[in-house]
Amino acid sequence: MHAMDELVRRIREKRNPSVIGLDTCLAHLPPKFARDHLRELPNMEEAAQAIFDYNKALIDELYDIVPAVKVQAAYYEMYGPAGMVTFSRTLDYAREHGLTVMADVKRNDIGATAEAYAAAYLGQTTLGEGKASAFCADFATVTPYLGEDGVLPFVRACEEHGGGIFVLVKTSNPSSGQLQDMRVGGRTVYEMVGELVADWGRGLIGEEGYSAVGAVVGATYPEQGANLRARLPRTFFLVPGYGAQGAKGAELAGCFDANGGGAIVNASRSILCAWKTRPDMDFAHAAREEALRMRDDLLAGLKAAGKEGANPW
Amino acid sequence: MHAMDELVRRIREKRNPSVIGLDTCLAHLPPKFARDHLRELPNMEEAAQAIFDYNKALIDELYDIVPAVKVQAAYYEMYGPAGMVTFSRTLDYAREHGLTVMADVKRNDIGATAEAYAAAYLGQTTLGEGKASAFCADFATVTPYLGEDGVLPFVRACEEHGGGIFVLVKTSNPSSGQLQDMRVGGRTVYEMVGELVADWGRGLIGEEGYSAVGAVVGATYPEQGANLRARLPRTFFLVPGYGAQGAKGAELAGCFDANGGGAIVNASRSILCAWKTRPDMDFAHAAREEALRMRDDLLAGLKAAGKEGANPW
Repeated sequence: MHAMDELVRRIREKRNPSVIGLDTCLAHLPPKFARDHLRELPNMEEAAQAIFDYNKALIDELYDIVPAVKVQAAYYEMYGPAGMVTFSRTLDYAREHGLTVMADVKRNDIGATAEAYAAAYLGQTTLGEGKASAFCADFATVTPYLGEDGVLPFVRACEEHGGGIFVLVKTSNPSSGQLQDMRVGGRTVYEMVGELVADWGRGLIGEEGYSAVGAVVGATYPEQGANLRARLPRTFFLVPGYGAQGAKGAELAGCFDANGGGAIVNASRSILCAWKTRPDMDFAHAAREEALRMRDDLLAGLKAAGKEGANPW
Repeated sequence: MHAMDELVRRIREKRNPSVIGLDTCLAHLPPKFARDHLRELPNMEEAAQAIFDYNKALIDELYDIVPAVKVQAAYYEMYGPAGMVTFSRTLDYAREHGLTVMADVKRNDIGATAEAYAAAYLGQTTLGEGKASAFCADFATVTPYLGEDGVLPFVRACEEHGGGIFVLVKTSNPSSGQLQDMRVGGRTVYEMVGELVADWGRGLIGEEGYSAVGAVVGATYPEQGANLRARLPRTFFLVPGYGAQGAKGAELAGCFDANGGGAIVNASRSILCAWKTRPDMDFAHAAREEALRMRDDLLAGLKAAGKEGANPW
């Protein structure tokens, strides 16, 4: 199976171009949930178990309305090896519920080391005469600072195992321009990286028209998003920065194709912590309400931009 | 304690500006060691245990002659959560033996997520009313593509906990120039990033004259290394690419200051797999011989460049 084809079809089936970011840590748990699941001085294993329980409750509540989850490795590594068990269990639980699973690991290294990362998240690890999976994701995020030596081992793993990657092109943070907006020759660094991403993905274009090699394009830079959209017609965008980071649906239409495809928008804290702004609801119900609100906001933005008419939905 | 001061003192005490890279995976184990430590079809836990046993034997053999080890996370993530247990145990075992420990994780993310990574490797994780360490390293490696939002959370963790980072500036791989050598304004991307690294580290300069914010500068580009050395007098360099990647001692003198300080050179496979070229020795003894040969090669290169005379060694 081609991971990007599968993602596109799930977005279409659920009529929802959004992905929920499970950046879960203890500080995001509602006080009642924390009281019920944790001692006052928990150890790493107990913390990691409570985080899995929270993720599980959110997946149970959201899997029928969202096509994908993105699991941010930093929040799991913070709890040591026990956190990595929860990371792995969360990926597995989401996949069992028919969700496309993105390991947001932003890995980058060279040669044999990049191959090891690709094996860890998208492929399999050789164990003597056998093989086994370390962390089972459909997609991993990758950083391009090392050039193609750091990316092609992931591309080869996509080819072999059917997974996909999203390469950082233009990120959502305030200082992303410090390097990415610098001009090299007649274009910016992020435009140049975008073109490299299109090149790297040229051999992996699926039936839905998009390559398994996608790009991360921050929601907080709508002009740059529209610019990249025009330049990279075969590149699917993972668009973080909605919600807590400030972007709204109407600003994001430029990241989508004329037919409303080609992008998926991530929100993390606004969903994980939806209980904070909906004190009358339990956390899972609040997350569902916020996920539905976000979906409708994105679809309204696409409609307002005239991108819904030709949409296959 | 200031991690860079400590590293500089250990280099001086052992008269050895080299760091051993523990990029250990099953394919690096000698056949006899693998037969003694593994079944034909090992599981992840057994593989991870064998890798720890190998690392332990190497540390036991090398800790009196080398100042530091660099542990490459990719090779441990490849074995799933069990691999992360071995990663953590390897860091701890090396620290217990008086070695400076570098977690080669090349992490990068923004805001709260970068803080989570910094907590995972250099700081502590909040657990209710308490705190605990996830992975205990003296240094972590960091990728700069996201700009300062992705680096300053690590710098703050260094300040708070006494650790250090090495930011990728000019990497050792063949395609590193694809992005890093592009010209932005009157300089290259890697020169620009080098200047940012110096800025980010300005508040963390230790008694030995170097900032806790260092730079990764590939051994395979000696001209660029000498260029950066001249531009960044307070920035300590982690120099990978010696040995298996092709660089030799005489080519590396340019990465060092006039007094022979300011850099540490990494070798991984040439040490881990020294048994391949020394079939008459057991693997640990072969690693020691290669580590001593490397040390002498580096010191001879410094001497030939006239950088030994003023050396505090």
